[in-house]
Amino acid sequence: MASTPTSEYRLRRRVQFHEVDSAGIVHFSWFFRYMEEAEHALWREAGLSIAPPGAEVAFPRVSASFDYRSPLRFEDEFDVHIRIAAISPRSIRYLCDVMRGSVQVAAGTMTVTCVRREAGDVLKATAIPADIASRFAVAPASGQET
Amino acid sequence: MASTPTSEYRLRRRVQFHEVDSAGIVHFSWFFRYMEEAEHALWREAGLSIAPPGAEVAFPRVSASFDYRSPLRFEDEFDVHIRIAAISPRSIRYLCDVMRGSVQVAAGTMTVTCVRREAGDVLKATAIPADIASRFAVAPASGQET
Amino acid sequence: MASTPTSEYRLRRRVQFHEVDSAGIVHFSWFFRYMEEAEHALWREAGLSIAPPGAEVAFPRVSASFDYRSPLRFEDEFDVHIRIAAISPRSIRYLCDVMRGSVQVAAGTMTVTCVRREAGDVLKATAIPADIASRFAVAPASGQET
Amino acid sequence: MASTPTSEYRLRRRVQFHEVDSAGIVHFSWFFRYMEEAEHALWREAGLSIAPPGAEVAFPRVSASFDYRSPLRFEDEFDVHIRIAAISPRSIRYLCDVMRGSVQVAAGTMTVTCVRREAGDVLKATAIPADIASRFAVAPASGQET
Repeated sequence: MASTPTSEYRLRRRVQFHEVDSAGIVHFSWFFRYMEEAEHALWREAGLSIAPPGAEVAFPRVSASFDYRSPLRFEDEFDVHIRIAAISPRSIRYLCDVMRGSVQVAAGTMTVTCVRREAGDVLKATAIPADIASRFAVAPASGQET
Repeated sequence: MASTPTSEYRLRRRVQFHEVDSAGIVHFSWFFRYMEEAEHALWREAGLSIAPPGAEVAFPRVSASFDYRSPLRFEDEFDVHIRIAAISPRSIRYLCDVMRGSVQVAAGTMTVTCVRREAGDVLKATAIPADIASRFAVAPASGQET
Repeated sequence: MASTPTSEYRLRRRVQFHEVDSAGIVHFSWFFRYMEEAEHALWREAGLSIAPPGAEVAFPRVSASFDYRSPLRFEDEFDVHIRIAAISPRSIRYLCDVMRGSVQVAAGTMTVTCVRREAGDVLKATAIPADIASRFAVAPASGQET
Repeated sequence: MASTPTSEYRLRRRVQFHEVDSAGIVHFSWFFRYMEEAEHALWREAGLSIAPPGAEVAFPRVSASFDYRSPLRFEDEFDVHIRIAAISPRSIRYLCDVMRGSVQVAAGTMTVTCVRREAGDVLKATAIPADIASRFAVAPASGQET
């Protein structure tokens, strides 16, 4: 568990065969899963699970985007560098760079909102609990990598 | 809703781009999803959902297999023909043929068991409720297609 | 095959079990696959395949985004309404609304670029061939649905 | 690169959020991907890629199965232990145990065949090239773990 707030995480990953499409490159939908895998690793780095058993709150995505610059191929090793760009009372905004060595493969964004599950299976926006919010901080100097 | 018990279903499907791997053929893991999609369509044909909101029982898979005979490619149309091979008090066994026209692409099997969720998130085997079991019957003459 | 240029398509779809995550809603990565499925149906409506055997050009994605407004759940029926927002010599930009009846579930964008595969497996931007570009037109009045 | 033939591999893996279904357990289709990820890691351990650029042969799956014994949940760490049960001139048969600590989660099998791509995109069975076959050996004492 981190003693200081966590603001970024770099996940090392390898391209799996089932992630590659018939053009021989990673299917664009996979980058959103890579970004989420890095987000959850960042939460673990902060001593948290984003979806522990019996959780009272959840963090659905309200927006996500990627710009694709260079392809990833089967068995490529790459890094998913996620960092916190903003924290508001009810949401967290991330920036994400996917890098193959020093080559930028893709740049993403993702915003998640804290919700509480109410009667009738309705999701209602709520404040991020203090014991979660206190573990995170905005990453310094969050410019895109080059 | 069927007035007589349901025993088989034929799902018409088209290969999507994201299901095809870098060899240009549908990734073998997708056939298990095709088989499950056909199973759930069979349940809807029987007037049921396999996972309705607030369900007291669930039907996890205890075994699944496929033999692959011929590849499927992008935009191919195909049929997933699922039928009930056996019903016991606690489980259902399916056979499945994936066909592209008259060509057999793959032959699968799947067995699901009825479970009840107990305290501590434990899944405990239980009898299939009568209002579910009564909707299904074993398919006649369940030889593999050719 | 369409005799007039194609500019939009509405794909009817049902949520499959394997698309739903442990929060009981469709995983956000799936919307990008829904959008692509609708794009490829739009190409078929125009008498084309986006990836025919032996194709000389391909259409990798250069950007994609979604804003999420309302969840989709298991077995929900929904429409993926894709339309062409812009065509340039080398790229096509789409807008996409995912609707459950009259409820907007999500709004997406996607831009694809035409590339030619060159020696060394390099992808080089190139003009969209005339026999492809002539089949498409920008959709009229492309405001977001409400 | 291994100096002696490779016969088994143990892949350490963590359950990702997008692999878990609405019942809160890893979707059964994912085990086939886990098994394939371990197979490709075994090939890398042997100094090989199963699908290198410009490959003359490929290894499509001809059969695959899993028996499921115990569920995997979000963020569980587990091992995928794959080993070679048989090698024939044209095919390799694997056994696979998925273990969470000392608990057996699932037991799988998979058989792959060596094919050469011929004119008309036909896949024709062929002998496994000697420089590949020589890197692998049947694993000793291949009983199922308990």
